[in-house]
Amino acid sequence: MGKVLIFGHQNPDTDAIGAAIAYANLQKELGVDAEAVALGTPNEETQFALDHFGLTAPRVVEKVAAETNDVMLVDHNEFQQSVADIEELNILSVVDHHRVANFQTANPLYYRAEPVGCTSTIVLKLYKENNIAVPAKIAGMMLSAIVSDTLLFKSPTCTQEDIDAAKELAKIAGVDLDSYGLDLLKAGTNLGNKSEAELLDLDAKSFPMADKTVRIAQVNTVDLNEVFARQDALRDAMLSENVKNGYDLFLLLVTNVLDSDSELLVAGEPREKVTEAFNVKLENDRAFLPGVVSRKKQIVPQLTEAFDK
Amino acid sequence: MGKVLIFGHQNPDTDAIGAAIAYANLQKELGVDAEAVALGTPNEETQFALDHFGLTAPRVVEKVAAETNDVMLVDHNEFQQSVADIEELNILSVVDHHRVANFQTANPLYYRAEPVGCTSTIVLKLYKENNIAVPAKIAGMMLSAIVSDTLLFKSPTCTQEDIDAAKELAKIAGVDLDSYGLDLLKAGTNLGNKSEAELLDLDAKSFPMADKTVRIAQVNTVDLNEVFARQDALRDAMLSENVKNGYDLFLLLVTNVLDSDSELLVAGEPREKVTEAFNVKLENDRAFLPGVVSRKKQIVPQLTEAFDK
Repeated sequence: MGKVLIFGHQNPDTDAIGAAIAYANLQKELGVDAEAVALGTPNEETQFALDHFGLTAPRVVEKVAAETNDVMLVDHNEFQQSVADIEELNILSVVDHHRVANFQTANPLYYRAEPVGCTSTIVLKLYKENNIAVPAKIAGMMLSAIVSDTLLFKSPTCTQEDIDAAKELAKIAGVDLDSYGLDLLKAGTNLGNKSEAELLDLDAKSFPMADKTVRIAQVNTVDLNEVFARQDALRDAMLSENVKNGYDLFLLLVTNVLDSDSELLVAGEPREKVTEAFNVKLENDRAFLPGVVSRKKQIVPQLTEAFDK
Repeated sequence: MGKVLIFGHQNPDTDAIGAAIAYANLQKELGVDAEAVALGTPNEETQFALDHFGLTAPRVVEKVAAETNDVMLVDHNEFQQSVADIEELNILSVVDHHRVANFQTANPLYYRAEPVGCTSTIVLKLYKENNIAVPAKIAGMMLSAIVSDTLLFKSPTCTQEDIDAAKELAKIAGVDLDSYGLDLLKAGTNLGNKSEAELLDLDAKSFPMADKTVRIAQVNTVDLNEVFARQDALRDAMLSENVKNGYDLFLLLVTNVLDSDSELLVAGEPREKVTEAFNVKLENDRAFLPGVVSRKKQIVPQLTEAFDK
């Protein structure tokens, strides 16, 4: 086995990049010629964490077949969220905490998914199972990933394992969990300096549902009104992305990380699937979703079910 | 969570039944209301193991949605190898050692696959990770599954982990690994009392390849000639299964468990994929494959690649 590239999903968030760095380090300790790469540049939250712990961002790649045939995926499995040439590659392992869909291999592989809040929680287990110590800087990135994915433990995706892992990693990294955690989340809510297209691309994933392609973007904020002041421009940008990329339906989930609520902005069709899935009416293309903060647990399954009816 | 049913693939072999029994016992120890069931009756090899260790065969089911919504899969993931109503069910976990294909869920789940020779080897790890002791009878079934899947360690799918697990389980079960292992394998080679249809159904799986459906059956023997004395009747039965079930291509892999070689019998089209995949000529619908004993490692990937060209 030659070089192995390890990466998270497109539009990487802190877990996609943190888990890739952490898993690549573990693989290196186990003797694999592994390198963490990323399918995009870090967002501001991730960059805040990298800077805080003195790490550099992984090299960005779009395709990898010219470099190597062997890859390991973290924090995703669906091919449309992965590297452009994923179907040509030999997937050696997957470490993930999402549903499995649009994924297949020709050969047996190592696949470790657990229904926890963050991939980095699973990666910490793998360090322990292999009796490898987590370096302090990497512990800081893994901690940041857990804070980010669970919105400091407020997301319904969060499990006791995530909380325990975060506490353990905070000790190794030498930071105060609560104050560092809030600083990290706030670093990701600086949206004013971004164009509508940038904002829609910060944390966006595509999902095939029935015969449609649904794009679901999420942004975090401390003030919903600040985002919706740009509603018309955002809707125009979403419609333009739909045309450009063949999406049928575009959902923007704007999440208030302090109140743990979200408001949805919808562009495209069939929008009646949105009203069915969440039992809401769209007014001016918007719907308030109290208590909703998790795309994975509170948006994708409900929408998938509405499409499958 | 109510009742959880745990099962291996259709046409169950010793690992499909043994891993289901072992994983269900582990889940019960962890507080889950779990029951091992099976998607078919035990073959003679599996029945030999059940009898030897004083266990009863799991109840056979075809559909489960009327009983429960929650299931766990062992030793398979591809839906076409699973229970008939798998797409209606909530899959809580998968423990497997095969490629991933034709599998998807709406929700995150526990998925544990490792590229080892036998699911029961992974299940032993899970007992250890949870600090649960394996009961002697169940250790005997898990040991039988490893012997069966690795042909007593001769298959290229066999890893050091499988060998170590088998040795450990033999101690717990209180049997001599080599002599019990040979007895078990021979118990599965008693083909003379079976009709052609029964023989083709002993250990058969379907695989979608490109736009075709390929059926691959495997039988173990200590004498290839004994099986090929029935070649004409077998070929007729294969062609009839193709028509009845919509298979395009049927491969029967006849494996000599003493010599660790196989001979292939082919019915249906496109048979040129077989000649491409294994770089052989078919003579009288047959091809000898020296050193080939593993459908998973030496047949399916090569054939998949030929179909994907």
